[in-house]
Amino acid sequence: MSEIIGLDLTPSQAGVAVTGVTAAIYVILNRVNNMKLKALQSNQAVVCISDKSTGKERKVAVDQKFFASLVKLYKVCCPGVFCKEFGLTLSVAGSLIARTWLDILSIDNATRIESAIVAMDQELFRKHITFFITLMPFLAITNNVLKYSLSSLQLAFRVRLTKYLYDLYLQKLVYYKMGNLDGRIANADQLLTQDVEKFSQTITDLYSNISKPILDIAIYATKLTRVLGAHTPLAMIGYMLLSGGVLTRLRKPVSKMTVEEQRLEGEYRFVNSRLITYSEEIAFYEGSSFEKMTIEKVFNKLVTHLKSMILFRFSMGYLDNIVAKYVATLVGFYIVSRPFLASKSRFQEFSHSARLEDYYKSGRMLLKMAEAMGRVALAGRELSRLAGLTSRVCELTEVLEDLKSDKFVRQQVASSNTSAPASKDLSPDAKKLAGTENNDEEGQELTLASFGLTLQSRGHTIISDGHIKFDNVPLIAPNGSVLIESLNFEVRHGQNVLVRGSNGCGKSSLFRVLGGLWPVFSGTVIKPVRRNLFYIPQKPYMTLGTFRDQLIYPDSHEDMRRKHVKDADLEVIIEQANLTRVLQTHGWNKLAEWIDVLSGGEKQRMAMARLFYHRPQWAILDECSSQISVDTECQLYDVCAQKGISLITVSHRDTLWQHHQKCLKFTDDRQVRLLDVVDGTEPQM
Amino acid sequence: MSEIIGLDLTPSQAGVAVTGVTAAIYVILNRVNNMKLKALQSNQAVVCISDKSTGKERKVAVDQKFFASLVKLYKVCCPGVFCKEFGLTLSVAGSLIARTWLDILSIDNATRIESAIVAMDQELFRKHITFFITLMPFLAITNNVLKYSLSSLQLAFRVRLTKYLYDLYLQKLVYYKMGNLDGRIANADQLLTQDVEKFSQTITDLYSNISKPILDIAIYATKLTRVLGAHTPLAMIGYMLLSGGVLTRLRKPVSKMTVEEQRLEGEYRFVNSRLITYSEEIAFYEGSSFEKMTIEKVFNKLVTHLKSMILFRFSMGYLDNIVAKYVATLVGFYIVSRPFLASKSRFQEFSHSARLEDYYKSGRMLLKMAEAMGRVALAGRELSRLAGLTSRVCELTEVLEDLKSDKFVRQQVASSNTSAPASKDLSPDAKKLAGTENNDEEGQELTLASFGLTLQSRGHTIISDGHIKFDNVPLIAPNGSVLIESLNFEVRHGQNVLVRGSNGCGKSSLFRVLGGLWPVFSGTVIKPVRRNLFYIPQKPYMTLGTFRDQLIYPDSHEDMRRKHVKDADLEVIIEQANLTRVLQTHGWNKLAEWIDVLSGGEKQRMAMARLFYHRPQWAILDECSSQISVDTECQLYDVCAQKGISLITVSHRDTLWQHHQKCLKFTDDRQVRLLDVVDGTEPQM
Repeated sequence: MSEIIGLDLTPSQAGVAVTGVTAAIYVILNRVNNMKLKALQSNQAVVCISDKSTGKERKVAVDQKFFASLVKLYKVCCPGVFCKEFGLTLSVAGSLIARTWLDILSIDNATRIESAIVAMDQELFRKHITFFITLMPFLAITNNVLKYSLSSLQLAFRVRLTKYLYDLYLQKLVYYKMGNLDGRIANADQLLTQDVEKFSQTITDLYSNISKPILDIAIYATKLTRVLGAHTPLAMIGYMLLSGGVLTRLRKPVSKMTVEEQRLEGEYRFVNSRLITYSEEIAFYEGSSFEKMTIEKVFNKLVTHLKSMILFRFSMGYLDNIVAKYVATLVGFYIVSRPFLASKSRFQEFSHSARLEDYYKSGRMLLKMAEAMGRVALAGRELSRLAGLTSRVCELTEVLEDLKSDKFVRQQVASSNTSAPASKDLSPDAKKLAGTENNDEEGQELTLASFGLTLQSRGHTIISDGHIKFDNVPLIAPNGSVLIESLNFEVRHGQNVLVRGSNGCGKSSLFRVLGGLWPVFSGTVIKPVRRNLFYIPQKPYMTLGTFRDQLIYPDSHEDMRRKHVKDADLEVIIEQANLTRVLQTHGWNKLAEWIDVLSGGEKQRMAMARLFYHRPQWAILDECSSQISVDTECQLYDVCAQKGISLITVSHRDTLWQHHQKCLKFTDDRQVRLLDVVDGTEPQM
Repeated sequence: MSEIIGLDLTPSQAGVAVTGVTAAIYVILNRVNNMKLKALQSNQAVVCISDKSTGKERKVAVDQKFFASLVKLYKVCCPGVFCKEFGLTLSVAGSLIARTWLDILSIDNATRIESAIVAMDQELFRKHITFFITLMPFLAITNNVLKYSLSSLQLAFRVRLTKYLYDLYLQKLVYYKMGNLDGRIANADQLLTQDVEKFSQTITDLYSNISKPILDIAIYATKLTRVLGAHTPLAMIGYMLLSGGVLTRLRKPVSKMTVEEQRLEGEYRFVNSRLITYSEEIAFYEGSSFEKMTIEKVFNKLVTHLKSMILFRFSMGYLDNIVAKYVATLVGFYIVSRPFLASKSRFQEFSHSARLEDYYKSGRMLLKMAEAMGRVALAGRELSRLAGLTSRVCELTEVLEDLKSDKFVRQQVASSNTSAPASKDLSPDAKKLAGTENNDEEGQELTLASFGLTLQSRGHTIISDGHIKFDNVPLIAPNGSVLIESLNFEVRHGQNVLVRGSNGCGKSSLFRVLGGLWPVFSGTVIKPVRRNLFYIPQKPYMTLGTFRDQLIYPDSHEDMRRKHVKDADLEVIIEQANLTRVLQTHGWNKLAEWIDVLSGGEKQRMAMARLFYHRPQWAILDECSSQISVDTECQLYDVCAQKGISLITVSHRDTLWQHHQKCLKFTDDRQVRLLDVVDGTEPQM
C-alpha cells in the first residue's frame, strides 16, 4: 500500500519522519504566532471600556471557592432528599446504569450477528436478529427516560433558582437599587433569564456527562481485563492520561487567546451599542466619521487577533490530530494486537472465527472506552464553563443580599479632584461633608470619594403622620456628587407646595430620598407612612395588564375587590380624570402595552386618576401634567383639593401658583428655601 | 441470548410486538400533548408585547426569496473570482476532496491491519502499520488545511459584510434615524455584531457540511456497488429517504413548539428588561408585588410549555430512536447479510478471512455512508437557520437603504382617536394638518395616522448664510404626534436668542429639525451650511479617545493638523473654558472613558471649549450649562460674543437674559412667539 506514495519504510523510520515534520511545523508556526501576539500586545489601546459596560472580570477557576459556590447553589436547586429534584437525580442515575448494561448487551449481540453473517449461518443470524428486535424498545425507552429525566431536572433546577432569585430581587426596592445605586451588576435581566437557564443546563449536562463515561470506563476496563488481561486497558488509560497532559500543556495559550478574543468582541459590541446610546448627540455633532474611525480600529484589532488565532489553531490542530487521534489509533492497534501476535499466544489454539469474535468484541470495547475517556476530557472543559456561570449567579445572589441590607458598592465615581478624601468606608455626616468640600474652580461640585466606594446610610427616618420634615439631610447622587449639602424644611398636611429650580438641581433627587429610593446619608427625615404618600413620576408608567390594572396600579384586581371597590366607582374616577372616552374605546378588560397605546396626555391623566383611586394624604407630582391642557390641569387640582390630598408639585407652569400655598425654591447657588405664595404669583426672594 | 428476558420469538413476532408497543406509546403521549397544547392556547395572554421589543416575526422559509437574498449577500461577501474569498472557497473544496480520498485509503488500511491481527501475521501487520504512520501527517495536514480555510473564509466574509454594512450605517445620519425615526429594527448593534458573525459562520459551515457528505455518499455508493452490487447502497438510500420522510412528518409539531418556546422566552426576557427600564417608576409606585405577579405569570406559562415540550420530546425521541437508529441498524444488517446468506452466494468460494475482509470493508463503508446521510439531513436543519439569519441581515440592508433615502416606517403610532385619518402614505401639508386636527377633549394632541405608517418628508430646506428662518414648518414627533402645528420665525446673525417653554413643548425638537435629524415634513427651513451651525446637546457627549479628541471632536487629530492648529492653540481654548487644571491632571494623550471620568460641570465646560475650537457662525446650546456656576457661565458667553458666535440658547436661568436680544417663547397653548428682550429681563407677552 505504501507504494502509492513511493515509500517503503519500517514503522520506526516512518515514525521518526512524522515526528520530525510535526516538530518543525510546530516550531515555525509557534514562532510566527508569538511574534504576532507580541505585536498585538504592544498596540496602544484604542478604547477604554468602563467596568460597568463589559462586566468585571471576576477571576474564575475550578477551585475550592467554585465548589463552595456550587454547593451553595445546589442547595437552592435541590433542598433535600424528599424533593422532586432528588428523585429526578436518581432517575438519571438509574437510566444511565440501565443504558450501560443495554449497550453491552447490544455490542455482544451485534458481534454475534456479524460472525453469523461471515460464517454464513442463517439459523444463528435469525436468532440474534430476533433478540436485537426484542431489545429495541428497551433501548429506546431507556435512552428517552434518560433524556426526559435530564430535561425535567434542568427545568426543575431553573424554576427553583428563578423563584429564589426573584424573591430576593423583588423585595425592598432591590431591583431599583441594583441598577441605580450599585455598580456591580450591569445586566441583571440577562443573569436572571439566560444565565440561570445556562447554569441549570450546564450543571445537569455535566452530571450526566461525567457519571456516564466514568461508569463506562469502569465497566469496559473490567470486561477488557477479562478478555485481554489487565495491561490492555491500563496501557490505554496510561496513553490517554499522558497525551491528555501533553495536549493540555500545548493548548494552554488557547484559553488566554480566547479570553482576549472575548475581550475584543466585547469591546466591539460596546462601541456599537455606545453609538446607539449616544446617536442623537453624535448626530448633533456630525461625529459619524470620527465614530466610524473608532469602530473600524476596534474591528480591525479584533480581525487581526482572530487571524492569529486561526493560524495558531492550525498548528495546534495538526499536533492535536497526530497525538490524540492517529497515534491513539496506533496505540490501540498495538495494544489489541499484542495478545494475538505474542509468540506464545493463547489464541493460537482458537479457531479463526473465535479469534475474530474476540478481536472485534475487544476492539469495540476499546473504542467505547476511548470515547468515554474523550467525553471525560470534554466534561473537564465544561467544568470551567460551569465555574464561570456559577461565579456569575453567585455574584448575583451576593449582590442581592447586600442590597437587601442597603450595602452599595460603586466602581465608578466621578472624581475630578485627586485630592478628594479617598476613605474606603464613608460616613457622610453632613457637617463633615461641608468641611471637606473641595474648592474646585466653581465651588459647584463636591466629589465624595475615589473608586471602589462603599456607601452606607447613617441618617434617620422617622415615620410620623401630618408633616414632612427634612433636617440637615444632604442630597447625594449615587455617583457620590453632592447636589445639596444640607436640606432643611418642613411642610404640614393641608399645604400644597410648588417646587421650583433649574434642571439637575436636585428636585427629583429630593423625592427619591423621600420615597426611600435613595438612602438618607445623614440627618433626619420625618415623613408619613408609605401608603399615605403617593408618587407620580415624571415618566408616565403603565403596567402590563388590563385597562383596569392601569387605574388601580399598584393594586391588583383582587386587592380592589378586597377594598370593596366596584367598576362603577372606578367609572366616577375615570370621569373625574377626563378619560371616559378612552374607557369607552378600550373597555376595562383589554390587554395592551398601554405605554404605546395611550397618548402622552392620556397617560398623564391616567396617573392622576390613579391618585384619585388611592386617595392618599400626600401626593408628589413630578412634572406629571406637562401634556395636559391648562384647563384640565386646573380641574384635576381641584379634585385633589376636594379629596383632601396635599400636593408637592414640580412644574414650570405659572398657572399653578394659584393651587399652592408654599414654594420650595432650589436656587442656582445650591440653596433651598421655603417661601410663602401670596396672591397666586411667584414669590420673590 | 433472548432467554435473558425469557422470550423466544421469531423476528417477525418480535417486530410486531415492538411496533405495537411503539404505536401505543405514541398514541397515548400524543393525546396528552395535544390536550396540553390546547389548554395552553386557550390561556388568556398575560402580556402584550409590542412589535418593537420582540422583533417582528418575518415569515422565514427556505424558498425562492431566501435564495435571492442569499445570492445578494453572497455577492457582497465574495465580489468576484479573483478575490481572496473565492480562493479560499476553492481551497476548501480541494481539501474536502483530499480528505475523502485519504479517508478511503485509511479505511482500507485499517481493515488490512485488522485481518493481519486476526490472521496473526506479524509481517503484514508491520507493513500496514508503517503505511498508516506514513499517512498520518497527510491526514493531519489535510484536516487542518480544511479547518484553516473554513475559518479564514468565515472571517473574510464577516469582514466584507461588516464593512459593507458600516458604510451604509454611518452615512447621512442613518444610525440616528434607525433608532429614533424608524421602527423596523430595534437591535441594530446586535445585528451588526453577532448576527453578521453568525451568518458568516453558518454559511461557511453549511458549505462544508453539504458538499462533504454529498461527495462521501457518491464515493461510498460507487465503492459499495463494486463490492456488493448496486442494490445494497440503493436499498440503504431508499430506507434513509423513507425514514427521513416519516420522521420529518412526525417532527412537524416540534418546529411549531420551538417557535412558541422562543416567543415565551422572549416574553419572559421582555418583562425582565422592562422592569429594569421602569425600575424608578415602579419603585416610586411601590409596584413590585404587582410586577412580581406579572413576571411569575409569564414564567409559569413558559415552564408549562417547556414541560409539555419535554413530554413531547420523550415520545418523539422514542419513535426517532426506533426508526432512525435501531431499525436502520436492522436494515443495515439485513442488506449486508443478503449477499452472504443468499443460497447461491459467490462468497461460498471465498476463504473465511477473505469474506471477513469484504464484510468489514463494506460494513464500514455502509456506516460511513449512513453517517454522511445523517449529516445531509442535519445540514437541512441548518439551512432553515441560515434562512433566518439571511432574512435578518437582508432586512437590515433594506432598512439601511430606505433610511439613506429618507423613507421611514413606524409600526407603532400613538393613536387614541380611531377616527384619525388612516392614510397609508401621508403627505403632511401643514394646512391639511391644521384642517384634520382631531378635537379630542383637550385639543392638545394631534395623532397623525394608524399603524404601519410610512412617513416621507415633503418640506424644503434652503441653505443660505446669515439667517435662520422657519416658514410654516410643523414639529412632528417620530411617533406621529404633532408638537407644533406651524412654526414661523426668523433670526439674523448677531442676535442671541433665548428659547423658553415647559418640558416636552418641542424645544429640542426644533433643534432636531434644524440639525437635519428630523425631516422637514412641510414648509420651508432656511439655514446656514452645516459647518456654520454647531450644536451642543443637552446630554454631554464625550467620544472614545484622548483628552485632545474630546476638545476637537468631531475633528480627528489629523484634521486638526491639517487646519494648522497646535496644542498651544488648544491650551488657550482650555484656559478660556476654565479647564486648565483638568488638562494638567490628565494631559493631552490620556485615553479614558471620559463620560465617566469628567464631572458634570467639566463635561459641560468641555462642550463649550469644543465650540470655541470650531468657532462656527451659529451655536445652539440646549440646556448645556446647568451645572456650570453662574459666574463661569457668564464668562463663557462673553467668549462666544468675542468670537462672533451667535447663540440660540435653551435655559431656565434668569441670569442669561442679559446675554440675549431675542426670546423664542413656546406657550402652553402650543404657540411659538419671538419677542424682544429689553433691559436683560424676561419679556412679557
